[in-house]
Amino acid sequence: MSSIPLTDLQRLCIHTITTKPWNIEEAAGYYSSNGVKGITVWRDALTGRNINKTGEMLRNHGLEIVSLCRGGFFPSKERSKRDLAIADNRKAIEEAYELGTNIIVLVCGADPSLSLEDSRKQIHEGIASVLPDAEAAGIRLAIEPLHPMYADTRSAINTLAQANDLAEILNSPNAGVAVDVYHVWWDPNLEKEIKRAGKNGSIFAFHVCDWKSPTVDLLNDRGLMGEGCIPLRKIRSLVETAGFSGFIEVEIFSNIYWKHDQSVFLQNIISAYKKYV
Amino acid sequence: MSSIPLTDLQRLCIHTITTKPWNIEEAAGYYSSNGVKGITVWRDALTGRNINKTGEMLRNHGLEIVSLCRGGFFPSKERSKRDLAIADNRKAIEEAYELGTNIIVLVCGADPSLSLEDSRKQIHEGIASVLPDAEAAGIRLAIEPLHPMYADTRSAINTLAQANDLAEILNSPNAGVAVDVYHVWWDPNLEKEIKRAGKNGSIFAFHVCDWKSPTVDLLNDRGLMGEGCIPLRKIRSLVETAGFSGFIEVEIFSNIYWKHDQSVFLQNIISAYKKYV
Repeated sequence: MSSIPLTDLQRLCIHTITTKPWNIEEAAGYYSSNGVKGITVWRDALTGRNINKTGEMLRNHGLEIVSLCRGGFFPSKERSKRDLAIADNRKAIEEAYELGTNIIVLVCGADPSLSLEDSRKQIHEGIASVLPDAEAAGIRLAIEPLHPMYADTRSAINTLAQANDLAEILNSPNAGVAVDVYHVWWDPNLEKEIKRAGKNGSIFAFHVCDWKSPTVDLLNDRGLMGEGCIPLRKIRSLVETAGFSGFIEVEIFSNIYWKHDQSVFLQNIISAYKKYV
Repeated sequence: MSSIPLTDLQRLCIHTITTKPWNIEEAAGYYSSNGVKGITVWRDALTGRNINKTGEMLRNHGLEIVSLCRGGFFPSKERSKRDLAIADNRKAIEEAYELGTNIIVLVCGADPSLSLEDSRKQIHEGIASVLPDAEAAGIRLAIEPLHPMYADTRSAINTLAQANDLAEILNSPNAGVAVDVYHVWWDPNLEKEIKRAGKNGSIFAFHVCDWKSPTVDLLNDRGLMGEGCIPLRKIRSLVETAGFSGFIEVEIFSNIYWKHDQSVFLQNIISAYKKYV
């Protein structure tokens, strides 16, 4: 049933935020020289840079640009802010195109002063507004369900079932989902919903890290793979059985690891990837 | 659709842990003199006391003892620990009987070294083991789904759907569920599952507090009602429409409020109860 261990790094992608202390040029150099094949670029890493040339720099390092993180954050009680969010998502689509990636991860957003139902409605409207732009640019939008502990301010889409529902309603080859083990590992419907996403051909991205016990910060205390209780190989097996064969993206927000020597951390990521994913 | 505001305190119950700095005698005195009608007793509040006499003391203050918190914590990789947990749940049933309450809230437990599926199986086995004792003592066991952020160590039952499934399988008038807004407010299936529990006659308890933005601690940063984004009146309306008319229990774990003057905090609880629940 389970997938076999990954013995090479052909499918290993790292998110720039995972090694936040490095700028994107340093990250590219170190990832590349250590055999990492993919990079997912967080938009903050592009600040002050020519995006086209940055994409070229990454490709010159032999890196595939797996996705751009992140669009989304559609809901707001204020119409003007919703319009700004839509404009910003259009900008993200342009950035992804210039950078040379064809996926944008969507953290859909939530406004605690709205009901979850209203936030969800605005998320639907927001994605529907920018989807034609994404289609025209050849960019796929990956709706990432976020852990229910982020339902107040980060995303009103908290289960893979909800993300699948939304992708099905949007009904476009450019609308799909991102499966991040941190957000979905607890879900009793996970297997069923991964199968459903696979059947739709809509698993656009697969993110890994681990859930530590105890977790001391709601946002920035993710664990390195193997450090926690997430059944990583089992979930990888589920997405692969459902047809996903793309990059496996390491996305770790950690106040602890960001203080470490990032070169040592990178070695630990590579070891953990082979041992636990 | 919505329930009307609560103008009196006939249904207000407070959990001893909400005012943790008070011992149970102080809590009883202050709750009672301020018109609170119900108390839910956390087992630590009974340490070193004669349970029967403590029950009498609470009733002499005019308080109804709504429930005992908490049983559960069934799963463990080790057989000996599972046996200890079952013994401890039998002890909780005896304590509830002596105290004079007919509900025990179950925080079902989870062992991060087990799969969630195995933890769930052991939870089922554990409850099934002690259910005959509960039935004999006239005690009802309220399975409380816990927020998915507690799936690692506190409960592998993370949605009301799972709690309902379990209660239905156990198939006893003494097995039901507890609906705590903090744990379930985010759930897209909440309305459906509250209706289902109501139809089964199995909503044994209803707990309130609020979800603050930001929440800075995974365990002890609950908000006072009105301080956060949980649609309290809407959820009360759902449980009441589903047939629940019992006590509304204020259960707030808060490092912040535990440092406050508890008499002032109690006044704030009463105001918030009338204004927001």
